[in-house]
Parts: sequence; structure tokens; C-alpha cells
Amino acid sequence: MSSQHAYFDNNSTTLLDERVLEAMLPHMQHQYGNATSRHMFGRSARQALDQAREQVADACGAHPSQVILTASGTEANNFAILGMAGTRENAKQIAVSAIEHPAVTRPAFALRERDYRVAVIATDHFGQVDPLSLQVALEKPSSLVSIMLANNETGVIQDIAALAEIAKVKGALFHTDAVQALGKIPVDFESLGVHAMTVSSHKINGPQGAGALILDKRVDIKPLLHGGGQEKGLRSGTENVAAIVGFGAACALIKQSLEARATNTQQLRDALNVGLKNMGASIFGEKSARLPNTSFFAFNEIEGETLVMALDRKGFAVASGSACSSDSTEPSHVLMAMGVTPDLARGAVRVSFGANNTQDELNRFLVALQGEVQRLRQLTALSA
Amino acid sequence: MSSQHAYFDNNSTTLLDERVLEAMLPHMQHQYGNATSRHMFGRSARQALDQAREQVADACGAHPSQVILTASGTEANNFAILGMAGTRENAKQIAVSAIEHPAVTRPAFALRERDYRVAVIATDHFGQVDPLSLQVALEKPSSLVSIMLANNETGVIQDIAALAEIAKVKGALFHTDAVQALGKIPVDFESLGVHAMTVSSHKINGPQGAGALILDKRVDIKPLLHGGGQEKGLRSGTENVAAIVGFGAACALIKQSLEARATNTQQLRDALNVGLKNMGASIFGEKSARLPNTSFFAFNEIEGETLVMALDRKGFAVASGSACSSDSTEPSHVLMAMGVTPDLARGAVRVSFGANNTQDELNRFLVALQGEVQRLRQLTALSA
Repeated sequence: MSSQHAYFDNNSTTLLDERVLEAMLPHMQHQYGNATSRHMFGRSARQALDQAREQVADACGAHPSQVILTASGTEANNFAILGMAGTRENAKQIAVSAIEHPAVTRPAFALRERDYRVAVIATDHFGQVDPLSLQVALEKPSSLVSIMLANNETGVIQDIAALAEIAKVKGALFHTDAVQALGKIPVDFESLGVHAMTVSSHKINGPQGAGALILDKRVDIKPLLHGGGQEKGLRSGTENVAAIVGFGAACALIKQSLEARATNTQQLRDALNVGLKNMGASIFGEKSARLPNTSFFAFNEIEGETLVMALDRKGFAVASGSACSSDSTEPSHVLMAMGVTPDLARGAVRVSFGANNTQDELNRFLVALQGEVQRLRQLTALSA
Repeated sequence: MSSQHAYFDNNSTTLLDERVLEAMLPHMQHQYGNATSRHMFGRSARQALDQAREQVADACGAHPSQVILTASGTEANNFAILGMAGTRENAKQIAVSAIEHPAVTRPAFALRERDYRVAVIATDHFGQVDPLSLQVALEKPSSLVSIMLANNETGVIQDIAALAEIAKVKGALFHTDAVQALGKIPVDFESLGVHAMTVSSHKINGPQGAGALILDKRVDIKPLLHGGGQEKGLRSGTENVAAIVGFGAACALIKQSLEARATNTQQLRDALNVGLKNMGASIFGEKSARLPNTSFFAFNEIEGETLVMALDRKGFAVASGSACSSDSTEPSHVLMAMGVTPDLARGAVRVSFGANNTQDELNRFLVALQGEVQRLRQLTALSA
């Protein structure tokens, strides 16, 4: 990519930290091996995995034995939903919030084929999951609740500990998708009081191809991937040693730099928001506790998709709606759940800052944004 | 690893080819991006995926639109078994051979919970799947047959086209696990006449973390991973761009060098077998068509595990039984299916040569093996 191109789409994926790449490279060169093998190559791979598992656990406030390594956050979410749904007899309902990532809602809906019922928990105008709605849903016997820690689009943070407490009283297990939270705010498995938590490597300047489900060992989860019996039989498949080592290294780095990174991205985000307000944008979820790096906004009568493409031509990478979904022109389900009008929601654009963004990039962005918003407004006025 | 250490465990995992690493590196550095994103970073990632998909298709005798990218061979096998089992109404049996990898048999057995029956197809003394046993099993209405193209332990190659024909007559879909075949013998999806075929990157000097299911598009498979709708909705999860690019590059290399690699590894394997015979070893499946790189053998009264550890200390990495299984002292299920006695099977050791092995390494190995076999026999004699 040209060095002038500014990347403001860090909730989608991040640049691999060069220290992480350095940690990975030996495992892509001479230090290869299948971690199941008993010879020297295999034992060396196993040792590297053990260290990475500790680093992941440490960044998540968990014990290494609670870390089940997967190839992605999506896999960990599917594993949690499909693997935990059957843990409670005669409780064939699972509850998910209306703003979950499709990697949670779609496996939940897939369970309908096996006669499960899916209860969708409402969200308020501020993007907060409604505890009362959860309580009402759990009147029906439920095996599992899944509510994300921080939303990928708005950045809104949920009070998971309180929601988990409600589920606990009702005897349901609780899973939280913490993919967007890790590396941006402190994440502590123990104090969240949940049974399972999903994290992912490529959102924290680690490589694509690694994730984990942090799991309370008392949960009798069923495997999603069956085979050679890796991860104590819970997740089969040859371990991707280099990616897992990279995930571990990225976790170690966020332990060191979480605060500095949060402060830096929040400064950029707050400055962006001031600019956005001056240009007349609506900012979604702005009254709620949010991830420090994320701003999700819209301008009246400007299509988000159009603005994203215009900004791309000017050298800025931002997202419209959720960048994790497939091609779709439907307005964001997150904004719909928050009661935003479809017209305004279609204008949604997300800026998500990362470790490498600078004030200079933001200044250039604000100038470009102002120009494009004016230009697109004139076009709209002409065609009206 | 020390450069003196010889790696003879290439059916387990392989050294990443440095040309493959070179192809991957830009995608681990400046050329990052989520392939679903519509900005320049995303489009560049998408382009790289498209090219890799073509390279994978080309190495498999398939069309790019038939390639569903996964994170591993295990995932592709689980996807095939669990996703195709339900495709035929009132046919709640699936048939797998007795020598399949656990990544095929375990998802098959997991389907018992959903009231499926699993028929296990017998194998003869030569390691060949018995067509008559398949025919008999398919008297019961069956949705799916899964038989591997080449066995990971013995290297024995099955006549998949003929077995697929039997299934076709009976109206069952056919899946083949070609993970061990790709890169060692020609693999052609079209001429095998199967509906689905699994391949994996790290067995062909590509990176760990990439695999594919090659799928006849007329098959109405169900997703295993639900979420953002990647791979046309059939396999969700952010694509691991670097790993997939590496998989593509490794596929392009085997297209070029398959014959030379097969000739080279077969020379080493045949020379090894002469040595083994002179030392009195039994070689499993030696009367059958086998992968050119694999020799699976045993010495009477010497534990395979013991020999593997002794050879490791001498600087040679080989496997005992299947290196893909978890810790287990059970004799190989492949050898049991072939009617080998448990005592002899417990002595099984696998040597699997790769692109980088040399005659010099083999010569040193034969000397070390002779020494260790003599030493261990003397120990056995003393303790008898």
C-alpha cells in the first residue's frame, strides 16, 4: 500500500506488529514441526505453543488451561454456541443480543434445525443490551446466553458482569464475544464471571489465523472440529504454530501497551468526533461507554458506501456498516436494533483507529472528509 | 533445529518452502487488509485470494469456483462429513473406510448422536479398501461415503475412481481425503469422479493454517462455520490471507516439481526399503501402489515408540504409528484393519521423505538404524 494511504479500519483487521512477525519467523523457517510429534522438532513446536498459550491467558485474565486455541474468532464463536447449547437438559432456548456479530447469531439460528429456539435480546437507543429483556427471555429454560463485550460497529461496551449475573440466577451458561474488546480495554475473564469468552489475534496486531475460546473447565462443551484430539480433544487439527506464536506475542505486547494505545487512539477519536459534529454528523452510541478507538457516524442524505469509496480514492480506508459481513446493502442490524431510521443507518461510516495512526493522518482525513461531504451534498441537491 | 538433524516426518508436516514464505511476507507486512473490506487494502487482499484460489484449483484439477478455503485439512474433512451427511433424505447411514484419519472417522461417529449409522468399510492385508465391503454396506440407504486417496501411515493409494463409481450407482455422495496424496502423486478432482475432496497446505511445503474442500457445486452442503458469509456463505471467518497466498504458492510449486520430487523421494524410499529388508524389518503395504515417499515398517520385538526416541537422540526425526493422533499407545488402527498382529503393530515406525531430504541423510540414517536395532535387540534379549 502507498505510505500516504491511511488505514482507519482497525476493527476489521490490523497491521501485523513487526515484533510479532519476528517472533513468528523462526517457526516459518528452520523451527518447523508438528506439535503432536514426539521428536525434537515436535517438542520444540509444543514448547512454543505452551508459551503462547500462557501469553494469551495472561492477556485475558485466565489460566493457560482455560485457553482452547482455534483458527479464528469466528471458529471460537461457533464452537461456543454449537458446543455449549446442549449442555442443559430440557432447556432448548439460547439467547443472543440483537447486536451480535453474525459469527454468533448465525450458528445460533442454525440450531433451529435441531429444534432450538433463539431469543433475541433487545438493545436500547444507546446501543446497550437491555437487562430486563434478558430477564424476560430467560423465563423460558435456556441453556446459553451470548452477549458481546464490545460492539464491532459502534464500539459500545456492555456490562457483561451484570448480564452474566442475571443468566447465572436462571441457570444458563454465558458466553461473551470479546474479539473487539481485547487490546482496546482491559479484559479479565475471571471478573466478567462468564463461562466462555472469544478472542482473536488479527484484531490486536497479531496474525490472521489464530483465535481462542477461553473456557471455564467445568463446562462440558462439545467439539466443533473432531479428529486427532489436539487441545485435549476439544479442538482437533494440526496447530498453526507460527500463527499461535504470533497471537501470543501480540497478547504480550498489549499487556505492555494497552494504556498508551487506548490513550492515543482515544485522542484521535475524540478529535475526529469534534470535527464530525462541526460537519453535522450523527454519532451512534456516543452517550455510552465505548471502545476508545471507534467512531460510527452518518451524514444525512449521504450513502455510507458512497462516502467510503470517495474517501478510499482520497487515500483513507474506512468501513461502511460492518466490514465483517459479506456484500450486503441492508442497513446495519446494529443500528436497526438501536432504533436508528433505515435512511440514516444507510449513511453509516466507521472509523476505527489503531496503534499506528497519527494526528497528521487525522488532520488530512478531516480535510478530505469535509471536501467529500460538501461535494456529495451538492450532487444530492442537484439530483433532487 | 541443528542442521545435522534429519527430518523424515514429512507426512506429519513439512518445512515451509522459502519461495512460499517470500510470497506470503508482503501480506504479513504492508499489504494487509480484510478481504471483505471494500477499500484499497481489502481489494488488494481479495485479489491475492483470487490468485491463490486459482493456484489451488489448478494443482487439484478443479475449477476455482469449486475451491472452498478452510483453515486446515481437519476443518475441510469435518465440513465435508458433517455438511454432506444430511443431503439425502431417509438415508441416515454414512460409510467410511477402516483406515481413515480421525478427522474423518470422528465427525462421522459424532453424527451417531443425530441418529446416523456409521458403516466401516473393511481393508485387506495389503491396505486396500475392499470394494465388495463397500457394496454390501451400501445396501442400506447411505448419504455419504468417505475414503481417503492415500493413507498417511502406509502410503497405500486407493482406487478412488472405482470406489466412487460403486457409490454413484447406489446414489451416495463421495468424499475423499487427499491430504497425503497432493504433492506426492498427481491428483485430479475431475477424473476421480468424487463430489468432494480435502487438501491441506502444510503437507506440501506450504504454511500451516490453510486447507480446502474441493466441492462439486451441485452438492447442497451445509456450512460448518457460520458468520460473515465468506466463501459464498459456505465458510465464514476472516480469510487468513498470508496463509492462503502461501497455500497457492505451494500449489504452484508442486505443479512444476511433482515429478522430480516423486522421483527423488522414491529413490530414497526404495534404498531405505532395501536396507530395512536386510535388517529383517516387515514393511507394511509394500505389495500395494503407495506414495513414493513413505515407508511404514516394524522390527519384531522392538517397540516403535522406543525406536523413535532412540533415533531422535541420534538426530533423526521419524514417527511411530500416526503422528496426527493424540498421545496414545494403542497400536495403529490402520495396521489393525490390515490384520497385522498387535505385537508387530506396536513396533511400527514411519519414515516419510520430503523435498529436502538427501542420499547422505539416508546413508547416515541406515547406519544409525542398524546400530539402534542391534542395541535394542540386545536389551530385549537380556531382559528376556
